Amino acid sequence: MSSKLICRRDLDFLLYQVMGADGLVSFERFAEHSRETFDATLDTAESIAIDHFASHAAELDENEPRCVDQQVALIPQVKAALAQYYDAGFGAATQDYALGGMQLPLTISVACKAIFSAANVSTLAYASLSAANANVIGTFGSESLRRLYRQPLLDGRFTGTMALTEPQAGSSLGDIATTALPTDDGHYLMHGSKMFISAGDHELSENIVHLVLARIKGAPAGVKGLSLFLVPKYLVEKDGALGARNDVVLGGLIHKMGYRGTTSTILNFGERGGAVAYLVGEPHQGLAYMFQMMNEARIGVGVGAVGLGYTAYQHALDYAQERHQGRPVGNKDASSPPQPLIAHSDVRRMLLAAKSYVEGGLCLSLYGAQLADRKAWSGEAAERERARTLLDLLTPVLKSWPSRYCLEANSLAIQVHGGYGYTRDYPVERLYRDNRLNPIHEGTEGIQSLDLLGRKVMMREGEAFELLCGEIELSIQHARSYARMREFSDSLHAALDMLRDTTKTLSRVLRAGDTELALANSSLYLDAFGHLVVAWLWLRQAEVALRVEDTSNDEARAFYRGKYMACQYFFRWELPRIEHACRLLSALDTTCLEVSADNF
Amino acid sequence: MSSKLICRRDLDFLLYQVMGADGLVSFERFAEHSRETFDATLDTAESIAIDHFASHAAELDENEPRCVDQQVALIPQVKAALAQYYDAGFGAATQDYALGGMQLPLTISVACKAIFSAANVSTLAYASLSAANANVIGTFGSESLRRLYRQPLLDGRFTGTMALTEPQAGSSLGDIATTALPTDDGHYLMHGSKMFISAGDHELSENIVHLVLARIKGAPAGVKGLSLFLVPKYLVEKDGALGARNDVVLGGLIHKMGYRGTTSTILNFGERGGAVAYLVGEPHQGLAYMFQMMNEARIGVGVGAVGLGYTAYQHALDYAQERHQGRPVGNKDASSPPQPLIAHSDVRRMLLAAKSYVEGGLCLSLYGAQLADRKAWSGEAAERERARTLLDLLTPVLKSWPSRYCLEANSLAIQVHGGYGYTRDYPVERLYRDNRLNPIHEGTEGIQSLDLLGRKVMMREGEAFELLCGEIELSIQHARSYARMREFSDSLHAALDMLRDTTKTLSRVLRAGDTELALANSSLYLDAFGHLVVAWLWLRQAEVALRVEDTSNDEARAFYRGKYMACQYFFRWELPRIEHACRLLSALDTTCLEVSADNF
Repeated sequence: MSSKLICRRDLDFLLYQVMGADGLVSFERFAEHSRETFDATLDTAESIAIDHFASHAAELDENEPRCVDQQVALIPQVKAALAQYYDAGFGAATQDYALGGMQLPLTISVACKAIFSAANVSTLAYASLSAANANVIGTFGSESLRRLYRQPLLDGRFTGTMALTEPQAGSSLGDIATTALPTDDGHYLMHGSKMFISAGDHELSENIVHLVLARIKGAPAGVKGLSLFLVPKYLVEKDGALGARNDVVLGGLIHKMGYRGTTSTILNFGERGGAVAYLVGEPHQGLAYMFQMMNEARIGVGVGAVGLGYTAYQHALDYAQERHQGRPVGNKDASSPPQPLIAHSDVRRMLLAAKSYVEGGLCLSLYGAQLADRKAWSGEAAERERARTLLDLLTPVLKSWPSRYCLEANSLAIQVHGGYGYTRDYPVERLYRDNRLNPIHEGTEGIQSLDLLGRKVMMREGEAFELLCGEIELSIQHARSYARMREFSDSLHAALDMLRDTTKTLSRVLRAGDTELALANSSLYLDAFGHLVVAWLWLRQAEVALRVEDTSNDEARAFYRGKYMACQYFFRWELPRIEHACRLLSALDTTCLEVSADNF
Repeated sequence: MSSKLICRRDLDFLLYQVMGADGLVSFERFAEHSRETFDATLDTAESIAIDHFASHAAELDENEPRCVDQQVALIPQVKAALAQYYDAGFGAATQDYALGGMQLPLTISVACKAIFSAANVSTLAYASLSAANANVIGTFGSESLRRLYRQPLLDGRFTGTMALTEPQAGSSLGDIATTALPTDDGHYLMHGSKMFISAGDHELSENIVHLVLARIKGAPAGVKGLSLFLVPKYLVEKDGALGARNDVVLGGLIHKMGYRGTTSTILNFGERGGAVAYLVGEPHQGLAYMFQMMNEARIGVGVGAVGLGYTAYQHALDYAQERHQGRPVGNKDASSPPQPLIAHSDVRRMLLAAKSYVEGGLCLSLYGAQLADRKAWSGEAAERERARTLLDLLTPVLKSWPSRYCLEANSLAIQVHGGYGYTRDYPVERLYRDNRLNPIHEGTEGIQSLDLLGRKVMMREGEAFELLCGEIELSIQHARSYARMREFSDSLHAALDMLRDTTKTLSRVLRAGDTELALANSSLYLDAFGHLVVAWLWLRQAEVALRVEDTSNDEARAFYRGKYMACQYFFRWELPRIEHACRLLSALDTTCLEVSADNF
């Protein structure tokens, strides 16, 4: 029976047949792993996701966290689910054996994350944030911070947050106003207010570890003056025992459209004299530290968006196969029995679009995770460097493409359900509401597009971009050997030429210093770029499908044919849209620049 | 101060400068009206919408209708708002003076509806459904039904519903199973169950009048066997006094993603022997009657979608002008003050897109309403016929284009607000949730697309389509006299040629009998068709703006320039997308037909 989370057949196909993830075991880091250990981990993830995460997702959505006696109360299933998650080792999945970790490749961990996100993204968020937090402390924190905070975070005894956003500054981190005053004891006293802090308060863990961007008194203006601090909810003694309550208080709970089970908080620091804060790393390096962690966080947002869209697609598919309604347009016989919804061409169109988005998005996330694994653990310096370059370039795409298109899959899933999809009796409306966050947090789509075009594509004179083009060209060469791939490889080739020309034009304008003109339509560039990358990954999926199709049984053949058809859908229905984007971009269209505030 | 509902300046521009709605007073029906009476009506609508509708929209969303002691309880402001609405005459706005109506053109009534929808679509729904219900009874009901039910519906003493959908049949009306048995007393006894019945139960009115599609025992299968019945919640004596409770019971309340203030119900008919039902009109004509009312209902859905998108855009615009955050990309000086959000090109892009959708959608709705006025009330038979033909053709577009693109404006409005837009402290997330219903009810997008391509475009050998093309060509000719319109008129001309060719190809296939092939991608056709129509209406708006720009003061010039820029946006960013759609359609792409259920 289908779990309606992530189709395991598809996950296996993407991981092993397309990405060759089993090849990662040749890295020393993963030497003790094998396809068997990967599969066992995925099995466990799926089983915990079904039994302990999916089972309370709807109830959690209907019962938001609330303040009771100055504590944040959550339904008890959240804590129980997290206990299962940590007991099974997912809290430290990618960590060193020495830290109690599994030394799992990020690729497999990201696959697990897709499964958990599909099941219950709100509950998962507590664990994901804690893992990211532990990573920052592990990489940049002093020995003492690592000793006192990292292990409890990995074990699930503590949970963590990332406290960047302030009410007045939003995405503009350079305007962060929270201050930190040095004391004679070596720590700092923090004053300020942070907003939209996920998992900022609750009773799920013994302690909460906030990683806070703030400005040491006298620091330069802008992002160059930001430092990173660790601020615990409860102070921790040198022996690890919990001490006094720190001066961090809950300023309020924020009520959201979705993701309702993850507390979103306003946190006030230093209302009673100053919150004890410990500097992480060097002063004024806060943003650089956060950015080094961003790659993983942004893959995380992307795969979360995939999970939410993917499971909605699975629900819609199931509904379209079970629900009998109406007759195909050719059939005028009113007394004939109603057909399954999937018999209608327009329903198949919606399902194909959703399939191309969510399976394309999952492939993209796994590809990004594999780059991260290669960058960190490959034995060859050149491969590490190559992976780092590609990952840097693609990070904005890994974050924003799934956030946009898997969200669209959520909307299509509602539409396939018709009136039922709009009710709270079916999960698709909740999944839509949850996913609507992803184009906003961890850098909005607009910000990702500036990062891609203004920074990543331009870095090292376009070297990263050319590296990616080379990879894509290689796949085009491979695909050309199949007659049935010819249409796709030709289209991709033409699209690549177009994007390359567009990129050249925009780079020239940027180098000439007209930043505003070059970046005016950057979100269109991000969209076209993302579509090209996903088309490439669909080409790779279809090529594998064609290669093995003949040697398969009937069921597998239907699966592989589905891959080919989704590729055909993407190449015929989706990829051509980038033509128009490239035309507008190459023409340096000034419509959005020209229009003035009083024209609205 | 802006009400953030519908910009009155824009409404005046569209009504009088673009549509020439004041010209409607030349029809005898509207002889006692004038621009002054129209304006006074709009003023009243705006004032009631602000004071009595918008004021409780958020509270109503947070406090859904619920069952208390077998009655459906709503917050008291709903009833109070409706009282104001009926007292001011909006319940019978377009009705005859003899019925206590205002004999207002539908064009002005639709403008009011945009305002009320923007303010609180859930509360408005009770009144809108009642008006539609009264219209059906007025047109097709017997003298006795008209006497007993219509006037109380127009006065607001009774409210009404449209009860079509059944749990097992959904959009497939031919599968309706509710039955009606004739009795010796001249009425019928009804048995069956209806679902998703909006306003199906509540205590807002003395009585609820259900118009129910059902099958007289022995009627033919399919839609040809459907008859229309009036089934009151309370029986009405011959003297108009309320009698016994009828055998219609609330089977349950349905909890929705949005539109939460409008009860959505399961209604069970005949659990205790049979609900008393009165035949409306002739047997087996039920669907035909409903379809004759559909034009207005579908304009209603369209303008409701416009209202929801429009107000979200107004909120986003306000936020983008008030909220200071970050600096434009060229500015590297971190100590310079933050700029308003609208200073960012990508924010202006989102606002321009939203503006082009909501103002384009409002223009479309008003155009449709004016066609309905001309069809019904023009003194010239030829004009009535012309308007009828265009309205029939455009009805699926009037319903679905705003449902799709004004919903997109809602999503953009969330995005402009960033993290705040995702919270329930700002109205944009609620407005999004409300609008998500519109692509579903009153015929899904898929169904509208089949209606447009399979029926409307084909009717009378494409005569309606050619009539529309002629209208568009006329506007192109006019626009050509302005050098600054040349780009747009050329683009529209090319797009029209493309759509015409595509239509020819599809018509040929339809005539050849390959219905399934021709209609396989109908939703793409609907989308392209809608974009062409809205581009045409933008051309007309821009032409007016250019014509009067020079004679205007500074403020007006900024407004007119805004119209020109939105037109430019639509022509450069939106219209070109139909090229790809037309290519796919003309190629009779079979991707969605070919893929089989086991490929997913």
